Amino acid sequence: MRIALIGMGLIGTSLGMALRSADETTSPLGNLFITGYDINAHATSIARGRLAIDREASSLGAAVEDAQLVVICTPAQVTRTVLSQLAPLLAPGAVVTDVASTKTAICRWADEFLPNTKLFVGGHPMAGREQSGPEAADRHLFTGAIYCLTPSVNTHPDAINLVEALVKTIGAKPYYIDPEEHDAYVAGISHLPFLLSAALVEVVSRSPAWQEMSVLAASGFRDMSRLAAGDVVMHRDICLTNREALIRWINETLAYLIEMRDALDAHDAAMINELFIHAKEVRDAWMLHKPSLRPGEEVFQGVPVERRGLFGFGKRRETDGT
Amino acid sequence: MRIALIGMGLIGTSLGMALRSADETTSPLGNLFITGYDINAHATSIARGRLAIDREASSLGAAVEDAQLVVICTPAQVTRTVLSQLAPLLAPGAVVTDVASTKTAICRWADEFLPNTKLFVGGHPMAGREQSGPEAADRHLFTGAIYCLTPSVNTHPDAINLVEALVKTIGAKPYYIDPEEHDAYVAGISHLPFLLSAALVEVVSRSPAWQEMSVLAASGFRDMSRLAAGDVVMHRDICLTNREALIRWINETLAYLIEMRDALDAHDAAMINELFIHAKEVRDAWMLHKPSLRPGEEVFQGVPVERRGLFGFGKRRETDGT
Repeated sequence: MRIALIGMGLIGTSLGMALRSADETTSPLGNLFITGYDINAHATSIARGRLAIDREASSLGAAVEDAQLVVICTPAQVTRTVLSQLAPLLAPGAVVTDVASTKTAICRWADEFLPNTKLFVGGHPMAGREQSGPEAADRHLFTGAIYCLTPSVNTHPDAINLVEALVKTIGAKPYYIDPEEHDAYVAGISHLPFLLSAALVEVVSRSPAWQEMSVLAASGFRDMSRLAAGDVVMHRDICLTNREALIRWINETLAYLIEMRDALDAHDAAMINELFIHAKEVRDAWMLHKPSLRPGEEVFQGVPVERRGLFGFGKRRETDGT
Repeated sequence: MRIALIGMGLIGTSLGMALRSADETTSPLGNLFITGYDINAHATSIARGRLAIDREASSLGAAVEDAQLVVICTPAQVTRTVLSQLAPLLAPGAVVTDVASTKTAICRWADEFLPNTKLFVGGHPMAGREQSGPEAADRHLFTGAIYCLTPSVNTHPDAINLVEALVKTIGAKPYYIDPEEHDAYVAGISHLPFLLSAALVEVVSRSPAWQEMSVLAASGFRDMSRLAAGDVVMHRDICLTNREALIRWINETLAYLIEMRDALDAHDAAMINELFIHAKEVRDAWMLHKPSLRPGEEVFQGVPVERRGLFGFGKRRETDGT
């Protein structure tokens, strides 16, 4: 199986490393030959040094010319550009997939640009970290993670099977979902959290007292600001390609914050109590039954060893998605 | 030195455990005898079982009658009640301190209720975790943490010295600050983060699609929702005793979110980019120079081992506060 990875950032490089560390004798993809390409040749070279790819390509055409599977691992707006350039370069029958965090726009662009849209399957691994670039790549990044796939009713079953085999080979769990649903949901549980993280950092750092405040900021601030350290271009593109869903969630958040502010203004202890209890109950329940946390992720720094059983793997729900 | 701990929750019990594991031959507090009291006798009994205290008291009076130092470790509104009952119970010359997250209201209540306000020193250790209760206590909870102290110009130097000795004995770093400043700053870097965490959980869980969304929620959601799992009564009391500062921060956050929503609505990629870049720069700078993260806290799950040097201990600024 000849695979082309386009984009040698955190995800592309991690994907290559995960593929290359899979056992070829048992993997449904069999023997792999992986070509990597990035507009920044230095990134491709680092990825090669980290054994994520077998060969460095010097152009998009050279990367995909004999590939049976092309995985586009770029920020959403760049994915559009790549899709728009792929048509004359692809080998006949090549299957194309991507990893961007928004799927509606990407699937529309695939329809628009690709010669055979039946061979495109949108994808989104629910995995990441705040560091970016090939240096931050990790072959275990996808282990146990949910990996969204958004084929349409017209997608060829062979294309779906091939991308599903890719997902399973890297140790992730395929999860089939409609692109619009995906975008609305992910806007709430992934893009809104990023935006609130950036909002927190921006709001406190605009204060003239930030210098003094920053001395007192501890682990609560650290966790709440982590996402704000993520890749800027990726998040900008996510916001721009998922505007409507995100605007809806921002409006919901504005409504909540106004509700809370008015309760504080009115000394309404009962209402504040009720809102906090509900949030705690929801969060505690999510932690207990959480299907998509990966091995090790249940374990907080703050959780004493003897309590880890609470989040035991035995309770994780399998999401075969089929 | 006879110490009374009032309130056997996470902080009171951790404080007792930290004090009892200090080396008495080198500690400035010398030999310790610690009495614990909680309105819930079961909590006191657990604290005794965890070796946080030497003796269980069955009433507030019995706990403080011969104490030279009284540490009130209760939610802010309960601290008011305790302060209001202490006057006839305290031994002459007893020094009183507390650990609540807001200081202006507490210092005002101490002025109002205590027989000798010169012997009161407000305190706030910048340490916690989302679990609560004596079972979650940890003798290392305060190790390396910044511990705010808010004496007034009238406070007796002996009282300050005694509380500072307590702080150093448990391995924390004394940090002197004005109560109003403390409250304004902590509202931004601690109480606002909690509120945004609760807002995120509440907003997404109100959606009819929460059940499906929760399957996709991963480590970003986990970190951003962690604070929402914290002690409800403590946070409610924090909000109610630090209303004005918190309302100001909520208004700043509303302004930012509206700014972001309008930029999204206008497809303003440049503005979105600029806001995200600034937030990332501030957060990256904070992580590099962060004075108050404690040993181990710099280490994220997501940070590869070879990168940990970036947040090396050598860069931590000492905050003797004197």
